[in-house]
Amino acid sequence: MLGSLMPETARVMLLRRFGSPLEEAAIPVPELAPRAILARIAAAGICGSDLDIINADDPRVPADRLPMIPGHEGIGFVEALEGERRDLLGKPVKPGDLIVWNRGIMCGHCYQCAVKRRPSLCVNREVYGITLPARAPTWLNGCYAEYLYIRPESEVLILPPETDPASIVAATCSGGTAAHAAELAQISLGDQVLVIGPGPLGLFCAAFALARGAAEVWVAGTQRSRSRLEIAEAMGCRVLFTDDLPGTADRPFDVVLDAAGTPRSIQQSLAAVGMGGTVALAGLAAPMEPLPIDLYESISRRGVRLAGVWVSDCSHVFQAVSLVLSGRYGLEKLVTHRLPLSQANEALELVRSRQAMKAVLIP
Amino acid sequence: MLGSLMPETARVMLLRRFGSPLEEAAIPVPELAPRAILARIAAAGICGSDLDIINADDPRVPADRLPMIPGHEGIGFVEALEGERRDLLGKPVKPGDLIVWNRGIMCGHCYQCAVKRRPSLCVNREVYGITLPARAPTWLNGCYAEYLYIRPESEVLILPPETDPASIVAATCSGGTAAHAAELAQISLGDQVLVIGPGPLGLFCAAFALARGAAEVWVAGTQRSRSRLEIAEAMGCRVLFTDDLPGTADRPFDVVLDAAGTPRSIQQSLAAVGMGGTVALAGLAAPMEPLPIDLYESISRRGVRLAGVWVSDCSHVFQAVSLVLSGRYGLEKLVTHRLPLSQANEALELVRSRQAMKAVLIP
Amino acid sequence: MLGSLMPETARVMLLRRFGSPLEEAAIPVPELAPRAILARIAAAGICGSDLDIINADDPRVPADRLPMIPGHEGIGFVEALEGERRDLLGKPVKPGDLIVWNRGIMCGHCYQCAVKRRPSLCVNREVYGITLPARAPTWLNGCYAEYLYIRPESEVLILPPETDPASIVAATCSGGTAAHAAELAQISLGDQVLVIGPGPLGLFCAAFALARGAAEVWVAGTQRSRSRLEIAEAMGCRVLFTDDLPGTADRPFDVVLDAAGTPRSIQQSLAAVGMGGTVALAGLAAPMEPLPIDLYESISRRGVRLAGVWVSDCSHVFQAVSLVLSGRYGLEKLVTHRLPLSQANEALELVRSRQAMKAVLIP
Amino acid sequence: MLGSLMPETARVMLLRRFGSPLEEAAIPVPELAPRAILARIAAAGICGSDLDIINADDPRVPADRLPMIPGHEGIGFVEALEGERRDLLGKPVKPGDLIVWNRGIMCGHCYQCAVKRRPSLCVNREVYGITLPARAPTWLNGCYAEYLYIRPESEVLILPPETDPASIVAATCSGGTAAHAAELAQISLGDQVLVIGPGPLGLFCAAFALARGAAEVWVAGTQRSRSRLEIAEAMGCRVLFTDDLPGTADRPFDVVLDAAGTPRSIQQSLAAVGMGGTVALAGLAAPMEPLPIDLYESISRRGVRLAGVWVSDCSHVFQAVSLVLSGRYGLEKLVTHRLPLSQANEALELVRSRQAMKAVLIP
Repeated sequence: MLGSLMPETARVMLLRRFGSPLEEAAIPVPELAPRAILARIAAAGICGSDLDIINADDPRVPADRLPMIPGHEGIGFVEALEGERRDLLGKPVKPGDLIVWNRGIMCGHCYQCAVKRRPSLCVNREVYGITLPARAPTWLNGCYAEYLYIRPESEVLILPPETDPASIVAATCSGGTAAHAAELAQISLGDQVLVIGPGPLGLFCAAFALARGAAEVWVAGTQRSRSRLEIAEAMGCRVLFTDDLPGTADRPFDVVLDAAGTPRSIQQSLAAVGMGGTVALAGLAAPMEPLPIDLYESISRRGVRLAGVWVSDCSHVFQAVSLVLSGRYGLEKLVTHRLPLSQANEALELVRSRQAMKAVLIP
Repeated sequence: MLGSLMPETARVMLLRRFGSPLEEAAIPVPELAPRAILARIAAAGICGSDLDIINADDPRVPADRLPMIPGHEGIGFVEALEGERRDLLGKPVKPGDLIVWNRGIMCGHCYQCAVKRRPSLCVNREVYGITLPARAPTWLNGCYAEYLYIRPESEVLILPPETDPASIVAATCSGGTAAHAAELAQISLGDQVLVIGPGPLGLFCAAFALARGAAEVWVAGTQRSRSRLEIAEAMGCRVLFTDDLPGTADRPFDVVLDAAGTPRSIQQSLAAVGMGGTVALAGLAAPMEPLPIDLYESISRRGVRLAGVWVSDCSHVFQAVSLVLSGRYGLEKLVTHRLPLSQANEALELVRSRQAMKAVLIP
Repeated sequence: MLGSLMPETARVMLLRRFGSPLEEAAIPVPELAPRAILARIAAAGICGSDLDIINADDPRVPADRLPMIPGHEGIGFVEALEGERRDLLGKPVKPGDLIVWNRGIMCGHCYQCAVKRRPSLCVNREVYGITLPARAPTWLNGCYAEYLYIRPESEVLILPPETDPASIVAATCSGGTAAHAAELAQISLGDQVLVIGPGPLGLFCAAFALARGAAEVWVAGTQRSRSRLEIAEAMGCRVLFTDDLPGTADRPFDVVLDAAGTPRSIQQSLAAVGMGGTVALAGLAAPMEPLPIDLYESISRRGVRLAGVWVSDCSHVFQAVSLVLSGRYGLEKLVTHRLPLSQANEALELVRSRQAMKAVLIP
Repeated sequence: MLGSLMPETARVMLLRRFGSPLEEAAIPVPELAPRAILARIAAAGICGSDLDIINADDPRVPADRLPMIPGHEGIGFVEALEGERRDLLGKPVKPGDLIVWNRGIMCGHCYQCAVKRRPSLCVNREVYGITLPARAPTWLNGCYAEYLYIRPESEVLILPPETDPASIVAATCSGGTAAHAAELAQISLGDQVLVIGPGPLGLFCAAFALARGAAEVWVAGTQRSRSRLEIAEAMGCRVLFTDDLPGTADRPFDVVLDAAGTPRSIQQSLAAVGMGGTVALAGLAAPMEPLPIDLYESISRRGVRLAGVWVSDCSHVFQAVSLVLSGRYGLEKLVTHRLPLSQANEALELVRSRQAMKAVLIP
């Protein structure tokens, strides 16, 4: 095995019971299977889904998965590596490398993976920090921890050593989903685009719309999200309040990316999209009451496509990381708070109360 | 001008008042502009939309368009031609040629036509037999007539002389829309496909699914559409009753083409489609009450696309005509009734009462 | 482990030295890793590449890979299975099932696999019967054998039990490559298509062109391939001699699939393709002298795409197997000779001398 | 007719004989057909093709097209307009508007226009300043002139009134072709891209690669094109000398856009492109000797696509104009020289001697 002496235990923040605060604990560091990596977490992001999981609101995490270590957004250093492996670009992975990995683990041999080449919909998909409990044999399955066990089948990418790890965490989840939304929406060069919801997901959506050459990208938010709209403006977007939708753009929207996922934002999206356009539902992550939709007016007569966006695959995460590394849109500014690992509960509260745009744990 | 002596008048069936029977009339044959064609109608199809138009249920035909000559599905012989022109495949058009044309007339210079290359959504689209009244200067603007005035900008295709004109009429409207639906649904080789609604539109949808290499095509209809399901079976489809949906196919449906356009068929479509699949709304041609849709379950969590299909463009009509001419799916059998022009009202009644699958006028 | 008692040894045909006949041998049956399958070969196809390999003409098989068991086209019964697994359509795999598998083994975590979703170009691709020597730990790595060791990461598909195994072997290689060619060439509905070279690859190309809805598919072959052209004709294609190219079709070819891969066929392909069309090089499987190409006339001025087709991935094999199972194009007729395993050298000679279209070993 | 009093004559620069200097002349201003526009030229670009035309090197301009007014790149003010019309975005066109138009005039009813939706390959395509002689009835058919007669079927776009007309001229030809190349090459987000040839076409190619979200765009030029490489660097590209190709980028190139079109640049493109990548031949605008290509190594074994790029259509020009108007890449800096109309011969010499990157006539 390549690497420094393996640590014996790892500090983690453990979810033992839904609804209770995370508890600090020490967990034994497992042996590595061939091609597995032990990553020392450099930064772990707090995602809105983590709140849902802790509250038992995410159907992907039933009670029998507890105890578990939350955290599906992570960046880390290679602490140890069993055998040899290369990263996505073919570079040999070495101890000390700063790396990012795909949070999702795909099977590669189901219909979605192998026939449809849509691994984001893999029927056997597992996710670090979501579906994997803190159990033998790999134990360290979430990023709210000192170390993460990265499985042999996970895709990894070596980052430039000077990268600020915190700047990349949002790319691993919101960024990937936004890349997926932009792909499904088929944003093309010269398009007029509207994004509803200026949180991390929405701002990544806006960045991807710009990066795909949209002529104008409008970002809509509520009055209380003024500071987030300012970030959008600094990125090169035009902004408006959701109360003012459909707004005053002098062209219809070719694409609307709904990153809010509320009944109101969905109806606004359908009202705002132009002939032949696409509405991508990127922000609808939890069950919702059926919504009455005027299919003739909104979908048929205007030749509109309504596309569901579910998580992302490795290509999307790669795109999101590339986008942040390019430095073109100031996406590193999404990180508003950095806290030590032991303050994970405080960090979760900052996100719950919307004080933080993006809070990051630095173990 | 090439051609035989121009006739002086043309017999037509005229819609003078919504809700009233069509009236036989004689209309002067206009002079031809350069590249215009006078077509002697060989077969004109009765489409469900014609019933909507006559009943004032189609918002595209307001009262100020009357009187008008219905009929947007037509095949004809070149009676006269002003100047020279070539068909879609580059063949010179000559008097006596049997031709088909695109029922829609696109402007070519709006955003949809020229930037998005989606001429079916042209903002200036006109349609023979729908949006064009029986007025100067071209007068003969619908196919329930002895002659049709084909504008210089219409695309035309010469048919093999031995073609039965009636066999092609359904391709010009239902067939084109089905081609459009199959394109938007991105049916690919090996897909599992469900079509709901075994009318002319649905059977064309099924034929296009087969023609794009679907592994299995299931067609669902009601108990009273048994004879239509038999045609589907003869085409190579598997059939089931809508009461039995989602059915017993051992694979989820990659694509569902809803050719019925009812609240029930739409909900069944969304329930039947598999992960990452597409539901194309091909049959929703008239306003409908808003429909409650469980967007999280039906669209988001399963990564589904819901696509509106609005009319068709020249490429779709070309595909539909090619498909009928190939003889591969027995689509000529859709024509169940042939009547003389003067019996247009009787033909409309046969369609209204669902006695006819496809009724065709032979002037 | 599920399954009958494991056999102790397997009879195989072994390539010990390039240029020498294959030798019959017995090889120990290895233990199965979790999710691995021991398949009892029901039919193994002889592919033109096998001749190249034996003659040391395929750069993928250097001398240090010997001894090896040739045979990358195979169908078999599940003899034993370690643990549980499901096939591509989600069905549990059981002993006795007749299965097909992807001959290529992809890594899943390189740039081509994970970012570009083009697993056929995986940089770590291995192939049963080509790149894997007859060595520990898996030993049984080729299909000219009683048994094949199918690795845990290989995709498998259960076939209907009544399937004739020999009818499917060509789908696993030529069929997959043809599916890939048809995909890269973007054959669309109503296209005019030309295929040059009526061997198994070319006939599968023709079948895929028909299955994707081509209006007309022309197949060109030499005078001595008359009997192969007759099969093409029976499939629904039109045929011509290569001496008569570019032929008399009344439309230019939207797509040309070159399944011959000779300097002459490539120049003919470029001469025959129409404006904006695609030439897919499907049959160029071995190094060739540089060929002078008139890029201005053939590529630029006509907006043509020239696409290299290299092997195939699981989706293509799935498509090819689906196509044979559909029974639509009589592809089972490609199998002209069946021989026992011990006559592998005779079977190779039948293919080398072009007496056999497709020869299959039945162990 | 809307507009100021129509002028009676227009000053133009006329090509009377191939190889001779252009001559100043006055030509009568024609009457406008319905929907036609008389544009007062605000800026006309000198394109490399103009040199080919004048030298009789462009097969699109045979001797019987003389005399003609060169100039296919133009921007102008609406001087007069017959009837009403709207621009691409639906705005009513009014006298005084600054407009850009599509230099190509498509028929709309040939196979390429109507079935394949590839109007750039229209078999009846005409081009202002290239294929249209200075004859009745429209006379003013090129942009080296005070006025241009814009036909009813041409697509037009109103520009913001504060636009510098000269900044847009390159978008109408090089920019459109570059947009087309980027589209055919399917540049996607995160790609590694190489552009060979840092002239106006190459710099637009680089800008489109950036605008489509390429991770890195490398521009290669010769030693004497140092100043052009500096512009590329200022745009955000990395640069290298063609002598140093294939260069030191740590990733293979997903896409290579050859904007030089020489035998050497084409071979370098094929050597530099990575597995599964695309080489787009954007700069091959005149006949060239056949070039020996190692198809097995360059195309087949690596799964590469070689795509010819021929001119552009309205969507590409729209994209290029949008890109310049966005101000994102400093494309207005391509204009290095501005001269009065009467100095067209001097402007042509500046381009011929490569002193000017882009020379523009200001009538």
